Amino acid sequence: MSTAPIVIFDSGIGGLTVVQAVREALPFENIIYLGDTARVPYGTKSAATIERYALQAGELLKKFHPKLMIVACNTASAYGLDPLRLQCSFPVLGVIESGAKAAQIYGGPIAILGTRATVASQVYPTVLSQLNPSIETFALACPLLVSLAEEGWWEDPITEEICRRYISEIPSSIKTVILGCTHYPVLLPIFKRIRPDLVWVDSGAPLSREVKNILSQQAALNNSRETGALRLLVTDQNSRLQELASKFLGEPAPSVELINLEKVF
Amino acid sequence: MSTAPIVIFDSGIGGLTVVQAVREALPFENIIYLGDTARVPYGTKSAATIERYALQAGELLKKFHPKLMIVACNTASAYGLDPLRLQCSFPVLGVIESGAKAAQIYGGPIAILGTRATVASQVYPTVLSQLNPSIETFALACPLLVSLAEEGWWEDPITEEICRRYISEIPSSIKTVILGCTHYPVLLPIFKRIRPDLVWVDSGAPLSREVKNILSQQAALNNSRETGALRLLVTDQNSRLQELASKFLGEPAPSVELINLEKVF
Repeated sequence: MSTAPIVIFDSGIGGLTVVQAVREALPFENIIYLGDTARVPYGTKSAATIERYALQAGELLKKFHPKLMIVACNTASAYGLDPLRLQCSFPVLGVIESGAKAAQIYGGPIAILGTRATVASQVYPTVLSQLNPSIETFALACPLLVSLAEEGWWEDPITEEICRRYISEIPSSIKTVILGCTHYPVLLPIFKRIRPDLVWVDSGAPLSREVKNILSQQAALNNSRETGALRLLVTDQNSRLQELASKFLGEPAPSVELINLEKVF
Repeated sequence: MSTAPIVIFDSGIGGLTVVQAVREALPFENIIYLGDTARVPYGTKSAATIERYALQAGELLKKFHPKLMIVACNTASAYGLDPLRLQCSFPVLGVIESGAKAAQIYGGPIAILGTRATVASQVYPTVLSQLNPSIETFALACPLLVSLAEEGWWEDPITEEICRRYISEIPSSIKTVILGCTHYPVLLPIFKRIRPDLVWVDSGAPLSREVKNILSQQAALNNSRETGALRLLVTDQNSRLQELASKFLGEPAPSVELINLEKVF
C-alpha cells in the first residue's frame, strides 16, 4: 500500500487522454501530471532535444518521490525512455510497448500513425518485431493532427478531410492501426467513420492495466477509497489552457500550476 | 561604414521571409539569423514565456556586437520589443511598426491576421491608432496557418480551404490586410486568389527600407561590394530543417549551426 503519486509526463496536454484512462482504471491513485507546454510540440524536433527535455522533466518529477512514472507522449517515449530508466529507481513506463502489445493481439499487418519524430525513430516497428518477428508494419507521419487537436477542431470538416488524406495512404492489407500519439484519441470518432473496418488501438487502456498489474505485484496500490488527487503542472499557461485541459481530460481540470523546466539542469 | 552584422531573431524559420527581404534591399550586409526551433511556436504561448524567450535570444545575439537587431517574429515583437530595447545599446526593430505604417498609407479599415498571442496583445490596433486615431481595425487569429506553412503545404487545397474559412471572417468594409506573422507571406498567393480586391501588406519590404534608412543616417551601411555573409543559428535541427529553410529564404540556405538558448540566463 502506497499513497505516493504516479507521475505522468507529456510534451503538452495531449497526455491528459492517458490520465483519463489511468483514473478510470485506478481511481484512488494520486497523480501529478507535467505538461511541457512552453516547448510543445516535441514531434517536430530532433532526437537530442527531445531526450534533453525528457530528462529535465524526469529530474523535476523525481522530487515528488513517485512510485511509478508514465511517459504519456509517444515522441518522448521513443527517445527518452531508456535514459529516463537509467535515472530513476522506480518503474518508468512509456506508451509504446502497451500499444504495440495490444495491437499485436488484434493481428497484423499493423499501421502506426504518429508524429514525424516518432515515425523516424522506428520504435514501433522495432518493438512489434520483437513481439512477433513475422509481423508486417507500416508507419505514417501525420504531423498536422496535433495542431488540429490542440486547436479543438475535433469534429470539423477540415480535420476530417486532413485525416482522410492521411488515412488514404494506409495500405489495403492493414488490419489494425495504432494511435501512436496521445493527441489522436480525440480524433478517433473521425478515424472510425473513415475506416470502420479497421481495429483502432489507443494505448491508454492497455497501459492503465499494465500500471495496475505492476503496482499490484509491488503491493503499492493506494488502498484508500477516496478519489485520488490530481495536480497539473505546466511550463506555460496561455488563456485557453484550462478549458482545453478539461476537454482532453474528460472532466473539469484542476487549476494548473506553473513551473520552469529550463533551470532543472 | 560598418561591417558589423545585422542580427535577426525569430521563433523558428518563418522569419527567413524577412531575411529574404533584407538581403534584397541590403545585399552587402552580413546577417546572423537565430531561429528558436527548439521552442517554436511562440504564438500559442503566454506573454511571460514569450518575453523570457526573446530576452534570452537578445542576450545571445548581443555577443556578436551587431549594429542593429530585427525581431522578425510578430509574436516576439508584440511582447519582447520594449524589454529588448532596454537591454541593447543598438537599434532594435520589430516587424509591427513597419507593417502598420505601410498599411496605414493604403488606408483603412485595416484587418490584421496573426497568431493568437499577437492578436491578444492588441499591439497592431494600438500602433495603428497612434498613427491615425480615427482608423478602424479588425484583428483575426489564424492559429493553424503557422503549422501549415511549416509543413510546406503552401499550395494545397486544404490550406486554401482553411485560409478561406479564416478570411471569410474579415468584415466587408476592410480595405487593407496586414500579414501579422512572418510565416504568412508564403501563403500570399492563396490569400490574393481568395480576395484579390484587398491590399495585402507584408512588413518585410517596408522594414528593410527602414533598416536601410537607419543605417544610412548612422553612416553604418556596409560599403563592401561583396554579397554579405549569412549565418543561420538554430536551437534544434530536425531532418527537414535545411530544406525548409531554403524554401522560406528563397535561396539555398547555408548549413545551420546548433546552439542552446536555455543556458543563456
